[in-house]
Amino acid sequence: MKIALDAMGGDNGLAPIIAGGLQAIQEYGVEIAFVGQQHAIERELARRTHDPAAIEIVHADQIVGMHEEPSAAVHARRDSSVVVGTQMVKRAEAAAFVSAGNSGATLAAAQLFLGRLHGVRRAALGTVYPTLHGVCLVLDVGATTDCKPENLYQFGIMGHAYAQGVLGLAEPKVGLLSSGEEEGKGSVLVKEAHQLLKSAPIRFAGNVEGKDIPYRPVDVVVTDGFTGNVFIKTSEGVAALLLKTLEREIKRRPHATLGALLAKQAFRATKACLDYSDYGGAALLGIAGIVIVAHGRSDSKAIKNAIRVAKQAVDSNVMGVIQEGVR
Amino acid sequence: MKIALDAMGGDNGLAPIIAGGLQAIQEYGVEIAFVGQQHAIERELARRTHDPAAIEIVHADQIVGMHEEPSAAVHARRDSSVVVGTQMVKRAEAAAFVSAGNSGATLAAAQLFLGRLHGVRRAALGTVYPTLHGVCLVLDVGATTDCKPENLYQFGIMGHAYAQGVLGLAEPKVGLLSSGEEEGKGSVLVKEAHQLLKSAPIRFAGNVEGKDIPYRPVDVVVTDGFTGNVFIKTSEGVAALLLKTLEREIKRRPHATLGALLAKQAFRATKACLDYSDYGGAALLGIAGIVIVAHGRSDSKAIKNAIRVAKQAVDSNVMGVIQEGVR
Repeated sequence: MKIALDAMGGDNGLAPIIAGGLQAIQEYGVEIAFVGQQHAIERELARRTHDPAAIEIVHADQIVGMHEEPSAAVHARRDSSVVVGTQMVKRAEAAAFVSAGNSGATLAAAQLFLGRLHGVRRAALGTVYPTLHGVCLVLDVGATTDCKPENLYQFGIMGHAYAQGVLGLAEPKVGLLSSGEEEGKGSVLVKEAHQLLKSAPIRFAGNVEGKDIPYRPVDVVVTDGFTGNVFIKTSEGVAALLLKTLEREIKRRPHATLGALLAKQAFRATKACLDYSDYGGAALLGIAGIVIVAHGRSDSKAIKNAIRVAKQAVDSNVMGVIQEGVR
Repeated sequence: MKIALDAMGGDNGLAPIIAGGLQAIQEYGVEIAFVGQQHAIERELARRTHDPAAIEIVHADQIVGMHEEPSAAVHARRDSSVVVGTQMVKRAEAAAFVSAGNSGATLAAAQLFLGRLHGVRRAALGTVYPTLHGVCLVLDVGATTDCKPENLYQFGIMGHAYAQGVLGLAEPKVGLLSSGEEEGKGSVLVKEAHQLLKSAPIRFAGNVEGKDIPYRPVDVVVTDGFTGNVFIKTSEGVAALLLKTLEREIKRRPHATLGALLAKQAFRATKACLDYSDYGGAALLGIAGIVIVAHGRSDSKAIKNAIRVAKQAVDSNVMGVIQEGVR
């Protein structure tokens, strides 16, 4: 299986991307097509031992910057790594495309060149979210900002398929993010989506609240792209706030500083539990092609895991299952 | 100044409410009207030293339970503590009403019996939110689930007035919760509200993201009641997840367990920084009367602080300033 990897995306340059791609070749037995500026890719590859037979370099001259306006950039720069990588999927020259670049541009390119699966009204970006007892999938976290109830219904179907195929759950429970557990709680959108999801061919578990999600009452959390984005970013912000406050309070106290040294491994393990890089990026669901959006800050491990997720999505035929579900 | 206090509300019975009310009398020089079942209140008062001159007992026979459907309960039970307390404000027999009871019932009673200030289209519940550098005010966190752009505009005006009057900020900066910092980011609702807020007579600082709010780029965060509710509950959930994960990782390691003992004070201080009870509950803004919704889990300190917030709202004429702002 060949996976196209955007060599020019991400905040940390080519090094972690090339390294992550090479690790994925070793661990998962995939082939990687590095997409981007040939000389820069060759230079990075030359510094590492690698098997040329599992590698292809696909030259793309242009770059879409991390902070550019996505849609305009994708329309204007047809020879950028994000457009070239997406078109490889379109032409079946790659089984999936992985990018840690400008996520808006990756979404825009996927919608523009791959299009949606038949019957899918809106795409959703699904990301795994750490809980006390493993992970759950949250979708949408930013592909479709304004949603209709039918969109949330389809997100339920798509999340269910992904949780089975990629997270390996036999009978995933699907919940709807709301402001209260009871059926009648929430916005008009959520109340209408609740009624639709009740009749969906999935295990619908009703509404869930943000405070309960860490205890993993459900495996899949359905929400609109605006709320999901706020949910993910708030989680990130609160985790950082708590760790920083704890650090400040520890530094103020000599005894505590010693204590924190002794507890260093525990702190490290806690951060690791909440570390996005283990989970390998967000999947764009509902699109006629497998596209994985890795975090801009991805290190080589995160890139490797994003490639694993892409491979699992292909292996488990997530696209086919979604197509079946939305018919 | 006399403040009506719902003696029958809250998850922990009368004891913390009576204790908090008595502490507030001592610290803030207010009078308290305890509203609820007379015998139960007298029994709790008899167990504590108190100044009868600063206390009134207003009998209300009925109770609205913590999990009852708010609107129906308030309509049906006119002799419940929440209705009687609200009507004391309506008749100017109390300057404000504080309740740790069923928050939906408190909101419903306020809207039904006090009504909104002239020109205010929807009420908002504003709560203070801990950050690395103090607190900010977030509104709405649940009074108006479905909002229009004009509602968010008015929440900006109301939040500004409250931050000046109760938080004591001379020139509060007001931000709009969105999925991106740039002006064009967010839902249709947010984009339209952004344009309105730009022309509001307040210091509007543009969009803010959940991940940035802990660093307090703004003093007031405006959002719709659905998103605000998800925001607050997610914060609560993530903080609990992080502390529990840390605890689990520490317990696994003998060295770390010793370390955590040494760092105990720092852990305690961290929890205190994030403790809702210091901040004294949420204020219902836009209503023709001062109503403070305390957390159901309030201890006596939280009740005392909720009374302080009520007093500050009265002293600073928040209602008058809001009325002026929305004209």
